[in-house]
Amino acid sequence: MEIGVIGLGRMGRIVADRLLADGHSVVAYDVDPETVAAAAEDGVTPAESIPDLAEQLDAPKRIWLNVPAGDPVDAALEELEPHVDSDDIVVDGGNSNFENSIRRAEETDATYLDCGTSGGPAGAELGFSMMIGGPEWAYEELTPAFDAVATGPEGHDRMGPPGSGHYVKMIHNGVEYALMQAYGEGFELLANGRYDLDMEAIAHTWNNGAVIRSWLLELAEEAFREEGNDLGDVADYVAGGSTGTWTVQEALEQEVPVPLIYQALSERFNSRATGDGEGRFSRRLANRLRYGFGRHEIARK
Amino acid sequence: MEIGVIGLGRMGRIVADRLLADGHSVVAYDVDPETVAAAAEDGVTPAESIPDLAEQLDAPKRIWLNVPAGDPVDAALEELEPHVDSDDIVVDGGNSNFENSIRRAEETDATYLDCGTSGGPAGAELGFSMMIGGPEWAYEELTPAFDAVATGPEGHDRMGPPGSGHYVKMIHNGVEYALMQAYGEGFELLANGRYDLDMEAIAHTWNNGAVIRSWLLELAEEAFREEGNDLGDVADYVAGGSTGTWTVQEALEQEVPVPLIYQALSERFNSRATGDGEGRFSRRLANRLRYGFGRHEIARK
Amino acid sequence: MEIGVIGLGRMGRIVADRLLADGHSVVAYDVDPETVAAAAEDGVTPAESIPDLAEQLDAPKRIWLNVPAGDPVDAALEELEPHVDSDDIVVDGGNSNFENSIRRAEETDATYLDCGTSGGPAGAELGFSMMIGGPEWAYEELTPAFDAVATGPEGHDRMGPPGSGHYVKMIHNGVEYALMQAYGEGFELLANGRYDLDMEAIAHTWNNGAVIRSWLLELAEEAFREEGNDLGDVADYVAGGSTGTWTVQEALEQEVPVPLIYQALSERFNSRATGDGEGRFSRRLANRLRYGFGRHEIARK
Amino acid sequence: MEIGVIGLGRMGRIVADRLLADGHSVVAYDVDPETVAAAAEDGVTPAESIPDLAEQLDAPKRIWLNVPAGDPVDAALEELEPHVDSDDIVVDGGNSNFENSIRRAEETDATYLDCGTSGGPAGAELGFSMMIGGPEWAYEELTPAFDAVATGPEGHDRMGPPGSGHYVKMIHNGVEYALMQAYGEGFELLANGRYDLDMEAIAHTWNNGAVIRSWLLELAEEAFREEGNDLGDVADYVAGGSTGTWTVQEALEQEVPVPLIYQALSERFNSRATGDGEGRFSRRLANRLRYGFGRHEIARK
Repeated sequence: MEIGVIGLGRMGRIVADRLLADGHSVVAYDVDPETVAAAAEDGVTPAESIPDLAEQLDAPKRIWLNVPAGDPVDAALEELEPHVDSDDIVVDGGNSNFENSIRRAEETDATYLDCGTSGGPAGAELGFSMMIGGPEWAYEELTPAFDAVATGPEGHDRMGPPGSGHYVKMIHNGVEYALMQAYGEGFELLANGRYDLDMEAIAHTWNNGAVIRSWLLELAEEAFREEGNDLGDVADYVAGGSTGTWTVQEALEQEVPVPLIYQALSERFNSRATGDGEGRFSRRLANRLRYGFGRHEIARK
Repeated sequence: MEIGVIGLGRMGRIVADRLLADGHSVVAYDVDPETVAAAAEDGVTPAESIPDLAEQLDAPKRIWLNVPAGDPVDAALEELEPHVDSDDIVVDGGNSNFENSIRRAEETDATYLDCGTSGGPAGAELGFSMMIGGPEWAYEELTPAFDAVATGPEGHDRMGPPGSGHYVKMIHNGVEYALMQAYGEGFELLANGRYDLDMEAIAHTWNNGAVIRSWLLELAEEAFREEGNDLGDVADYVAGGSTGTWTVQEALEQEVPVPLIYQALSERFNSRATGDGEGRFSRRLANRLRYGFGRHEIARK
Repeated sequence: MEIGVIGLGRMGRIVADRLLADGHSVVAYDVDPETVAAAAEDGVTPAESIPDLAEQLDAPKRIWLNVPAGDPVDAALEELEPHVDSDDIVVDGGNSNFENSIRRAEETDATYLDCGTSGGPAGAELGFSMMIGGPEWAYEELTPAFDAVATGPEGHDRMGPPGSGHYVKMIHNGVEYALMQAYGEGFELLANGRYDLDMEAIAHTWNNGAVIRSWLLELAEEAFREEGNDLGDVADYVAGGSTGTWTVQEALEQEVPVPLIYQALSERFNSRATGDGEGRFSRRLANRLRYGFGRHEIARK
Repeated sequence: MEIGVIGLGRMGRIVADRLLADGHSVVAYDVDPETVAAAAEDGVTPAESIPDLAEQLDAPKRIWLNVPAGDPVDAALEELEPHVDSDDIVVDGGNSNFENSIRRAEETDATYLDCGTSGGPAGAELGFSMMIGGPEWAYEELTPAFDAVATGPEGHDRMGPPGSGHYVKMIHNGVEYALMQAYGEGFELLANGRYDLDMEAIAHTWNNGAVIRSWLLELAEEAFREEGNDLGDVADYVAGGSTGTWTVQEALEQEVPVPLIYQALSERFNSRATGDGEGRFSRRLANRLRYGFGRHEIARK
């Protein structure tokens, strides 16, 4: 199958490589010409622009976006618009908000598939897990490509109508935040506790037969091996948060309590809020109130 | 009524003063002789030791402990032991754990009252709120003294059998942690939010007729007045935590979820855990795991 | 001062009554003619419609909306539009979302004040606490009316530009949710705990001098007096939630953790989610997973 | 190696079978003679009592306890006491509290190993993950047996001195509670959300390459396959909680916040608290307080 890949960042490059490796032909474009040139050496057909890419593809066209969520997706779609109609399929493989995906599916003349992609760059060899929303015919049409980029036929599925792929991916990420924080709490208790323990060895033992074994726990094992038992100079600063925030917003909409996902997200905010040495206003007030009623000494900066 | 007061710290001194002001006679002892001398100038009869205090009192003896919770209470009781019998009443006015109070009530030859005391040094003029556990006859016998030290007859009550006074006070404090954190969250959102707002003025307006008006909110108003709109150099460090910890332990025992009290206590721990620049281990691991699966840049110290 | 009051529900009627009692003249309209007639007997000048109300008022007009938040506010403003210009002042005294208030302030030809009102029907005698956003001249112009409806001059203040009144009120309500849940947790531990305790007596003792004394605690005291020590047939069902949800959304926007406000809101959702006998899906899955790894018996409906 | 196995419940039987399958000889006792007889048919040498078991073993004796945590462990140790000395090794393979294990290691004349065992009955074929505390020589001596019962040499490790095995297992279980609740929240949002989704298919797709893939997620996939997309008649009732409670208590001791583990434990309590139709007292009070200030209708049972 011939596929146009727009965006050759970390994820886009893996998508292109896995398509090539499976025998598909790839026309690729990226805002950075050097990135395109490097990919061309590995077998992709280079494009100089999005219109150029669109024109190089035979109809019906199959195009896979791997650009950052938000405006870049809309910008790419706008450039594609004169070159596509409803026989053409555009896949958004990024972390877009599902409501944007619903809107885009309605606005574009092309047939749109929203594709949540999990597994990260670490999935370059194994392949990804992909959750796809949009018309069934388009999903089936692209199945050979999904087989190639996912871990195989088991690694992708159609969730439902437009938006459902990114919807399921959003919630996947909310769960992911909570799992990371859950392991973190456990290891903090172990690292801070009554015994002098070997974190990597514990993670290794757990990964062999324990109820809590998982891929994230394998990554934790790797982290302790590479950073040391006390995680060395790894900072208390957790970046990111958009998909977790969306998950909590969706839970508010549904009136479903998600205390773990909320607290995991909050811990990220906490890690950032205290970084400037100012600290949390809420706790500064509590400190002062204890003086107010109890004349407990006020801790000062 | 003649009352022996052991311990003339912040709270003990207020107890002695309020008893004197209400016409009672007070024999007082403190480990610090200067403190005793100062109180003597204001009308208490000084004692040189706990046995000396016990001997100066006529039988039946009424003794009020205001020493730090824990070993000092046991030490004072041990010194009192040869001088008291079941006609004598000993009040523990401190923040003792209720299980210790149950044990002490059983161990001492005196009749024991555990008295949870709320209102803090700020209650010196208004009087305290006092929650008392122990035999009814002893509570009634001491009622004139409780009237004097509390805000009046409405400001004290017998909760039930031994330990119940400190039990109710423990839970009072758990609620107190949560109320402080709740106001803190609100003011943090205001201070950090979309408008340039006057914290003191908001607290003042709320204290005049709003649903959330309270004494703690009056103290918040005072805090903003004295420290400034941004709380000046008040640090993000909340000390204390024993009564809150006991409350959560009791809730675990009861299998009753107390998410607010737990989180309020956790915020105190959080304020201290990050103070050393090391940060929270759990979040450091999450930071590292994001690299593991997503090759997101690791924040380093 | 002559004031038009639109909406004579619980709050609107109190607004009208307090204005009348302070010597102002009130022209009032409500969708229910009987409500208008009843108020007319007590001294308001009745209006048959919003245009009728607007025409009865002398310029510059002062109009106070007390209609449910949301569409009814927009509908009332639309009807007023032909009858007002920038010399006229419209106050929205309801629980509107602050973003709607910002929009309405821009859209209407009148000068707009958004007024968060706290104190509830219980404030009929005492007066309310009012947080007001909008132009300073309009706030000053209406100060005599605010003095009458609030607890007095201390009970109202201008927070800042348009939207700020409802913004501060929104956060007030978030704090309110948390305070209620905090007291609830404390009383649950007392009611469920080791001693046979008198809830009303405890609340009463606390309200006399304790750190956690507050108006809400006075209402709790009243609740135990009226419903009994075990709250009788009061159900585990907490309605409402919009202002709390908005507060959490604002906190997500600010990236400020509000664990107590979030959990208090979640408890409301929880009280409703389990009411249908279905229970929480998350816990049903946990129940089943325990069988999966541990062959623990599955609890069935 | 010859090993005495005390307790042939679900886990004990698997331990005995895996030892036999690996060529070890097993002398076994259980309070239920039929259970012993059944195991004897499969190759264990039956014992009629704990003393009988101890006498059948050659010195130095190796004994593996698989009895319920708590008193049964102490009772078994008491019966063993006359028959063991420090050359003999006793393994406690149950979910004992680590503080009891420390005490038992001191009290018994035998050499004691505390062995946290994860993997559940589902681990019968694969083998368990085992975390072991106690003297190194004893751990090494029993390594062939641990190899047989665990997933192999990678599936067990010595954590440290006495108690450390059960300590690490306790925290493992705390994390386990949080992981289950995290997945539960995600699937609740999916089941309750905007799309008509296939839970089993989503779990299957996630288990093939997604960041959150894990053994628990495989069990979730199985649960949806066996119970149906809506979990059929699986009830909202999560039993158990002791190891999670201990984990939170340890976290309180360490002053380490564990919001996710705490909330996961609380959700278990919540699932049980509302089962009697009474509901949560805290929320019933909140319901009533809303009437107090806002005259909102009280929901009644």
